[in-house]
Amino acid sequence: MKLLEDRILKDGRCLGKDILKVDSFLNHQIDVALVDAMGQEFARLFEGLGVNKILTIETSGIPIAYAAARAMGNLPLVFAKKTTPSTMVDGMYSAPVKSFTKGTVSNVIVSTRYLGPDDVVLLIDDFLAHGEAASGLAEICRQAGAKCVGLGAVIEKKYQGGAEKLRKLGLRVESLAVIASLEGGKIEFDKTL
Amino acid sequence: MKLLEDRILKDGRCLGKDILKVDSFLNHQIDVALVDAMGQEFARLFEGLGVNKILTIETSGIPIAYAAARAMGNLPLVFAKKTTPSTMVDGMYSAPVKSFTKGTVSNVIVSTRYLGPDDVVLLIDDFLAHGEAASGLAEICRQAGAKCVGLGAVIEKKYQGGAEKLRKLGLRVESLAVIASLEGGKIEFDKTL
Repeated sequence: MKLLEDRILKDGRCLGKDILKVDSFLNHQIDVALVDAMGQEFARLFEGLGVNKILTIETSGIPIAYAAARAMGNLPLVFAKKTTPSTMVDGMYSAPVKSFTKGTVSNVIVSTRYLGPDDVVLLIDDFLAHGEAASGLAEICRQAGAKCVGLGAVIEKKYQGGAEKLRKLGLRVESLAVIASLEGGKIEFDKTL
Repeated sequence: MKLLEDRILKDGRCLGKDILKVDSFLNHQIDVALVDAMGQEFARLFEGLGVNKILTIETSGIPIAYAAARAMGNLPLVFAKKTTPSTMVDGMYSAPVKSFTKGTVSNVIVSTRYLGPDDVVLLIDDFLAHGEAASGLAEICRQAGAKCVGLGAVIEKKYQGGAEKLRKLGLRVESLAVIASLEGGKIEFDKTL
């Protein structure tokens, strides 16, 4: 997505060789018009697969998932939680998700009320790195008996292997910008697409 | 907002006398069309005040704030974070926020990059109870030298006094549904509006 690549080059900041900081438009301050355009692009990329529910994980995935759900005809959107709320009184599905940035493992949960065998699910997230978050969400779909068709990611760091891992699970993976390298603080997009 | 009150009566669940659970359409599963309508209603209620930025707090406020930012002409949206990300390398504003539901105090933060003296800010959140979250966000606006014009809340629990407290700080408060009581598990809306 040219609009996104241009914005990453203009406003993205590299921290070390692994972290691309895009908090001026994606995950702290949000450019609503740009995120809306991403939602429309995901709707186009996953058209015709019968998706009837969007699943993401708190926090940064939520606005993007909202835009995608909206562009796909106001589909219901569910976000997995990283902590169990004190008000969670229903049964839940859960899966462990490792964060390489934080070095922690958290259990992500979804209430059994909001995911089931009738659901055809598209996962949406801001970043795709090692594929840990998406694998956890796919596992939650499996527990619910829901069909998970794929993952739409805004920014994929290809060299961390997440997309390959998820495709082996049978998921279709579509990323709006694919980073080949951040070496030396230089953002290089993948040219093989 | 009649549409919202009807939905609360239909799908809201009372836990004890203080907690109204609306996770089937607002804060776990999200009804995108309903949240879009809320955004339009906030745009109408806060029209003409020169708002140029929306500020909310992770997590449940984000979709509502997104819809409001969108309805107000794609304003930039900033969400305050409850933990300091490892990738946060810039200066930040912070304020303590007490959660009555969880019994904890967390420091919410906003990067100094995304809030400043030119900003005219509307706060958006899902619930207004004791007004702790909104007070914290208003304090962050004060630190940034930004003008905070008010709070748009989806559901206000009037008997917890948050709206009164915020109005004393000079904020305009608009809630889409005002709960007078949850006693005995019965949802009663405020009729004095």
